[in-house]
Amino acid sequence: MFADAKKSWPLNAWYQAAWSHEVEDKPFARTLLNEALVLFRDEDGAVHALEDRCCHRATPLRLGEVVSGGLQCGYHGLIFDGAGKCVHIPGQNNIPSQSRVRSFPIVERQEIIWVWMGEAEKADESQLVDYPWLDDQTNWPHKHALYHIDCNFYLLIDNLMDLTHIPFIHRNTIGGGDQKGQVEATMEVTAKETGVHYIRWMEGIVPPPTYVKGAGWAEGIKVDRWQEFEYIAPSTVVQWTGALEEGRGAKENRDQKGGFNLRLYHGVTPETDDTCHYFWTPLNGYKPESQEATDTLFKEIDFTFQEDVEFLEAQHAMMLAKPDAPLVNTKHDSALVTARKAIDRMIRAETQPPLAAE
Amino acid sequence: MFADAKKSWPLNAWYQAAWSHEVEDKPFARTLLNEALVLFRDEDGAVHALEDRCCHRATPLRLGEVVSGGLQCGYHGLIFDGAGKCVHIPGQNNIPSQSRVRSFPIVERQEIIWVWMGEAEKADESQLVDYPWLDDQTNWPHKHALYHIDCNFYLLIDNLMDLTHIPFIHRNTIGGGDQKGQVEATMEVTAKETGVHYIRWMEGIVPPPTYVKGAGWAEGIKVDRWQEFEYIAPSTVVQWTGALEEGRGAKENRDQKGGFNLRLYHGVTPETDDTCHYFWTPLNGYKPESQEATDTLFKEIDFTFQEDVEFLEAQHAMMLAKPDAPLVNTKHDSALVTARKAIDRMIRAETQPPLAAE
Amino acid sequence: MFADAKKSWPLNAWYQAAWSHEVEDKPFARTLLNEALVLFRDEDGAVHALEDRCCHRATPLRLGEVVSGGLQCGYHGLIFDGAGKCVHIPGQNNIPSQSRVRSFPIVERQEIIWVWMGEAEKADESQLVDYPWLDDQTNWPHKHALYHIDCNFYLLIDNLMDLTHIPFIHRNTIGGGDQKGQVEATMEVTAKETGVHYIRWMEGIVPPPTYVKGAGWAEGIKVDRWQEFEYIAPSTVVQWTGALEEGRGAKENRDQKGGFNLRLYHGVTPETDDTCHYFWTPLNGYKPESQEATDTLFKEIDFTFQEDVEFLEAQHAMMLAKPDAPLVNTKHDSALVTARKAIDRMIRAETQPPLAAE
Repeated sequence: MFADAKKSWPLNAWYQAAWSHEVEDKPFARTLLNEALVLFRDEDGAVHALEDRCCHRATPLRLGEVVSGGLQCGYHGLIFDGAGKCVHIPGQNNIPSQSRVRSFPIVERQEIIWVWMGEAEKADESQLVDYPWLDDQTNWPHKHALYHIDCNFYLLIDNLMDLTHIPFIHRNTIGGGDQKGQVEATMEVTAKETGVHYIRWMEGIVPPPTYVKGAGWAEGIKVDRWQEFEYIAPSTVVQWTGALEEGRGAKENRDQKGGFNLRLYHGVTPETDDTCHYFWTPLNGYKPESQEATDTLFKEIDFTFQEDVEFLEAQHAMMLAKPDAPLVNTKHDSALVTARKAIDRMIRAETQPPLAAE
Repeated sequence: MFADAKKSWPLNAWYQAAWSHEVEDKPFARTLLNEALVLFRDEDGAVHALEDRCCHRATPLRLGEVVSGGLQCGYHGLIFDGAGKCVHIPGQNNIPSQSRVRSFPIVERQEIIWVWMGEAEKADESQLVDYPWLDDQTNWPHKHALYHIDCNFYLLIDNLMDLTHIPFIHRNTIGGGDQKGQVEATMEVTAKETGVHYIRWMEGIVPPPTYVKGAGWAEGIKVDRWQEFEYIAPSTVVQWTGALEEGRGAKENRDQKGGFNLRLYHGVTPETDDTCHYFWTPLNGYKPESQEATDTLFKEIDFTFQEDVEFLEAQHAMMLAKPDAPLVNTKHDSALVTARKAIDRMIRAETQPPLAAE
Repeated sequence: MFADAKKSWPLNAWYQAAWSHEVEDKPFARTLLNEALVLFRDEDGAVHALEDRCCHRATPLRLGEVVSGGLQCGYHGLIFDGAGKCVHIPGQNNIPSQSRVRSFPIVERQEIIWVWMGEAEKADESQLVDYPWLDDQTNWPHKHALYHIDCNFYLLIDNLMDLTHIPFIHRNTIGGGDQKGQVEATMEVTAKETGVHYIRWMEGIVPPPTYVKGAGWAEGIKVDRWQEFEYIAPSTVVQWTGALEEGRGAKENRDQKGGFNLRLYHGVTPETDDTCHYFWTPLNGYKPESQEATDTLFKEIDFTFQEDVEFLEAQHAMMLAKPDAPLVNTKHDSALVTARKAIDRMIRAETQPPLAAE
């Protein structure tokens, strides 16, 4: 129904290149969308992204140094400014105009360094995902994570679009408790121009161990639990999940003190056709004053996500081994299918010629 | 003369998939003939073999669990029975008929789990190799081994078909003693419909160190030594080798007490074009009451076979590097050539259309 | 301008196969120019090079043994003489004429084992590089090194042809001191039929730390420094570098006692398209009586060359990733361009048909 062996992605889009804290005044190399980049922070604190290849002898610029005026190649000393223009060749006065490397538009905002890998003149800041909670360490304290995963980035997004995996992969962590209740949660899926939104409700269920520990609930308590996700194509998923004790009217108003809830930001950027970078951070919305709660939350999510990684990598390897074997959707794939349609629209917009006006 | 770079094999045949003891009530993954399989033993003790790929999202089934009714995928919980039919999709009542995975005929017999990788309807138990000694731990005590070798499975069978390698590769173990006597052994080769049989006799020779140790012979004693091998295409070799003191009439009657003799079962199953599984077990026929003799025999054969592995992997790598370079047969290749003809007949029977009757 | 992604080389030429001390009376395997060879020293001390593949069953001959009369395959005992002719098949009297392996012309001279990988009948000893200092451990004591590098051998020669890399890659070792003086050294390039010669002079500069330590100079002293290199296609670079105190007339006569100077022999032999063997040895010309000076010189050059290796491997990987991306020469590439022309002439001489005489 949708192309699972597909290995392309939209180029005219913002992708997370790094967390802000990763890029300092030293060259920082990262491959994104099959392109080797080098990022660096200049003397004024601005971040730049260049092709990680000197135009002189193809040496990776990551082996060089950040100097006044730009990034200096470590082999023969050529210097490139943030726009990729060569501004210095040691011992040579004239600089040929073809002495340049490709540069990529960068925006740094809300702790994220975003890069635009397509046509630079189409880079549009209004398309950036807005996630203001990242700027609020006081009310939503959080720690940053990054996984390198040996799977196509689509598989990770699929994983977040079908939560019926939770009682199976995560039976010992967040998927514990009432398994049947989780599988049979109500599911409301809303297609959006930018992606897909869905919310699942499990009412009157036994909460999973992670939630019990987080909220400090007594044994035997039942809760109304929600899982709200939005996918913004091509590569962001934002999540708000939690539970309140049964009877507190969670379904009408989730925004109450107490209980358990967390926000999760997921940024998934292709590294290559077969690997991706997974940026994620869980924001502690239930005990913001407790450093211990923030640490515990991070640790448990980390443990849980490692369970997913094992499956994603095995699944990807199997898809590579049998690229043409068919897949059979289940009814739980509805959000996943809608998500794929959104990214497919972006790819088509880039690759298909516009229709001629009549 | 025969195709050494060949990378195919008959499919309509029984191959050893595992030793019986390997497959328990947990999913057991193994790649055979380029196909990733998952085996499991159900509640009734029956062994089943399925394609190791869930039809829903291509997740390997080895990450799941054996449950009542079959094998459950660990990602979203689909259950497949031993015939590969999906019998449960969590939270969904109807199960589409295309929800199934391929299953493979299995027979478990004489400590061996056999699998049929070709057309299921042609699976024929009468073609199974019969090796009753495996069922007789009392008179033929034995331990099981399995090597994973980086070579095409043909090269391992070739190795067993030309024993003039013994005084060279194994000069320090079973190939010690009278080297010239070993090279010049008489060799009687008999082509069979299912493969080839040969027997070699070395009369009045100094026995190799392994034999001396096994039989407890005094120094200086001479023996009549035999090596009897049968290859049953595509992938089994059975062996009976031993020696009796000169003058005891070994050539007329090998089945006497004393001296030294052992049976060896060899099962070689392709994993991929370039790797194979080598199942083997030496059966202690000379001191069945001695656990120490069984252990020592196993340890020495193990050490000896490791010597072969080094050669087989280097030989395979060289054939990959120069696939089209010619090979020059020697007169010692007669059994090897006959063995290849038998397996070639099986391949031709599968791949060539039957001749029209006149 | 020149083909950087090129992956070929002249075959009718001498390449260094090994240092003399590496090849003893055991089979010695090494891949050169994509060809797996086995070298051995016979009973008379002569070195031979054969294809590392037995003609019988493709077993690598490196697993065999040197015996009287040649090299014996370790699998079934065939013996090949130094010319590659099979002279013995165990248990078989007639030896078919096609029982042979390819042999390669070898010359051992001045501590180097040279091999000719092309048409044997064109092997011409008069084309050998002459480097008599290797025979003179008394006046030019030296230790031998060999690196295995993951780069095309051209990149290593390029490195030696453009020394403006020294103040960048080697800023902490031989590139320290007056960086601007090094970049702006005079450079005299002379094209030769066999390659290219160049000499660079830096007059009145602060010497680099390595030189100061070597010569035992006081702080603040200035020197006249030279770097003389000759590339002899396809794979040899010889070097004489040093410095004398300012005012001693180095430019008129470098051959004076004192100061600092060393000779360096570089032999670069392709292993595969993407890897090479780098043979090198620095000859201590400034304190030949001191073993400590010889050791220190070796250790420091070794440390310095490791800095190059990091760049060469990263540069090669980037060229593989973007084989068609253009390169932009600088004025410092003049010797490099001339060197490439010399090797290109050799390749053309082999691959292009001679013009018909009018």
